[in-house]
Amino acid sequence: MVTIRDVARLAGVSVATVSRVLNNPAIASKEAREQVLQAVATLGYRPNANAQALATQSSDTIGVVVMDVSDPFFGALVKAVDTVAQQHQKYVLIGNSYHIAEKERHAIEVLIRQRCNALIVHSKALGDDELSRFMDQVSGMVLINRVIPGYEHRCVWLDNVSGAEMATRLLLSQGHQRIGYIGSSHGIEDDLQRYQGYSQAMTHSHQTGDAPPAAWRAQSSPDLQGGEAAMVELLGRNLHLSAVFAYNDSMAAGAMAVLKENGINIPDDFSLIGFDDIPIARYTSPKMTTVRYPIVSMATLATELALKGAAEQLSTGVSHCFMPTLVRRHSVSPWQNVAPVTY
Amino acid sequence: MVTIRDVARLAGVSVATVSRVLNNPAIASKEAREQVLQAVATLGYRPNANAQALATQSSDTIGVVVMDVSDPFFGALVKAVDTVAQQHQKYVLIGNSYHIAEKERHAIEVLIRQRCNALIVHSKALGDDELSRFMDQVSGMVLINRVIPGYEHRCVWLDNVSGAEMATRLLLSQGHQRIGYIGSSHGIEDDLQRYQGYSQAMTHSHQTGDAPPAAWRAQSSPDLQGGEAAMVELLGRNLHLSAVFAYNDSMAAGAMAVLKENGINIPDDFSLIGFDDIPIARYTSPKMTTVRYPIVSMATLATELALKGAAEQLSTGVSHCFMPTLVRRHSVSPWQNVAPVTY
Repeated sequence: MVTIRDVARLAGVSVATVSRVLNNPAIASKEAREQVLQAVATLGYRPNANAQALATQSSDTIGVVVMDVSDPFFGALVKAVDTVAQQHQKYVLIGNSYHIAEKERHAIEVLIRQRCNALIVHSKALGDDELSRFMDQVSGMVLINRVIPGYEHRCVWLDNVSGAEMATRLLLSQGHQRIGYIGSSHGIEDDLQRYQGYSQAMTHSHQTGDAPPAAWRAQSSPDLQGGEAAMVELLGRNLHLSAVFAYNDSMAAGAMAVLKENGINIPDDFSLIGFDDIPIARYTSPKMTTVRYPIVSMATLATELALKGAAEQLSTGVSHCFMPTLVRRHSVSPWQNVAPVTY
Repeated sequence: MVTIRDVARLAGVSVATVSRVLNNPAIASKEAREQVLQAVATLGYRPNANAQALATQSSDTIGVVVMDVSDPFFGALVKAVDTVAQQHQKYVLIGNSYHIAEKERHAIEVLIRQRCNALIVHSKALGDDELSRFMDQVSGMVLINRVIPGYEHRCVWLDNVSGAEMATRLLLSQGHQRIGYIGSSHGIEDDLQRYQGYSQAMTHSHQTGDAPPAAWRAQSSPDLQGGEAAMVELLGRNLHLSAVFAYNDSMAAGAMAVLKENGINIPDDFSLIGFDDIPIARYTSPKMTTVRYPIVSMATLATELALKGAAEQLSTGVSHCFMPTLVRRHSVSPWQNVAPVTY
């Protein structure tokens, strides 16, 4: 492989001069620039990104930590970051962390060691203290789908509780009373918040203000297979539910498949509502009513904030809480046969 | 930020000694090791990955170039690479290249400059010559879903033609004759090969050996939306097709949604078969009959080959062509009303 020494030899200058021309051309002489660039072209020299990063103490790479890129929600997040990165001629380094503290920590550390000066982090397993220490160290680190007090200007998050309340209220407004909740088994705050929103709406609508029974909640992995398993579990408990609110669209689609396989028509016999509005929600049959998580807008903003933070140009005193919206399609219909709730 | 100079000062040794201890402890003295590691712990020093990569001329990062991680097929590919990477305590750097030559070239160059010594590349837009030059330069570079003559031991690919023939023959064996093809508009060889397999099976089964009419083929983006658009196009042409073979499962699922929206029952009125066997194929209603692309096995092998290549331990004289298999679910049924083909 051609080295910087070969370039220096051919150009008849020192290695330091070659380095200066390549990393900081403004301070090199015009003559040196021409000799070096000529030698680079002749030899086909490829500058070492690690050496460049060392010289400039930054890299052309934006780091992203997500749970798992093969999950459509995180795929959309990464794609939005990539779009902004490309506009800034930067590349994206992705670490999957599977909602496991050790993997989240390791992914962030590896990206910092790569001198990524902009980092978009989806972390659910690490504590506020540890994340704050990372953020103190790296000015271009931004959190997505999480807020840490004191760092609001570097966090982009969603009001999960309100989104879940909206979904549950829509089902209640259609006359449903026995409404189940299919949640994520990852034990992350999103699931707790969505369960809270569901529970608040249910309690508020109940004549004596009782919370919904624990048996109406089933948990599994937040994907198609998990939605299938959780719906099978709820059906097996024979609860006479007429509707379900699901943690995300993948789980809702998995639940829909099970219901149809069991001859339960949607929405005539059973209503379903999801969360996120990933593309699959428009291609189920019937099309899925859901709560929109504006992940593309949020990831775009997070990337812009990270780049500004890396350049020490971030404004404080602002916060970036997004609000979900209802997307009404065809998986919810009115409950005809309203019987008194007996729980 | 704590630098290597701070560590050297506290340890009372030279910067070169600190570097030796951190990068190549075997050649450092026991005393120096203890002093340096003590100082590293006291100061909370974080070694710079770029400096380490320079020192060892390698990095702890495996590079992957794919079309788009938000596509479920590529999400599964990246996840499989990540699984192997984690087993080797390595991280994954991903570049999206969108089947565009310039982006593929740029992604490969950036990863090489990062001194990734293992690279798994899904490239469709670059020519064999350019890819061979990259592979000559980087011994740990492996191609996935492509084969270049002379580099068979560093390529992991699928027999697309046979897979498409299997799918088409299954439809023919069920009495279908007017079978359409929904393809990708990306103009990549996979689409040409799958069309070729379809066309060969159709021609072979036709009484006078005619190829299927060009009008029976529609192309769009290889996703849910594209499958929807292509199916709308075929329905609009009023071709009286009774079945469709789709380029991938996402397109097949998009086509299924349109057919159902138009009151066409699957499989009673119309049969559909996809390609890839991504999870969505098990959650459509009815479940999708498809051709399995063993992407997880293939990406796992490609990563292992790349790591071996990086260690100069790759065997020549072997090749890695995978064979697709049929997965029979419920989107194909026999055609009852067999009329003579009139094209």
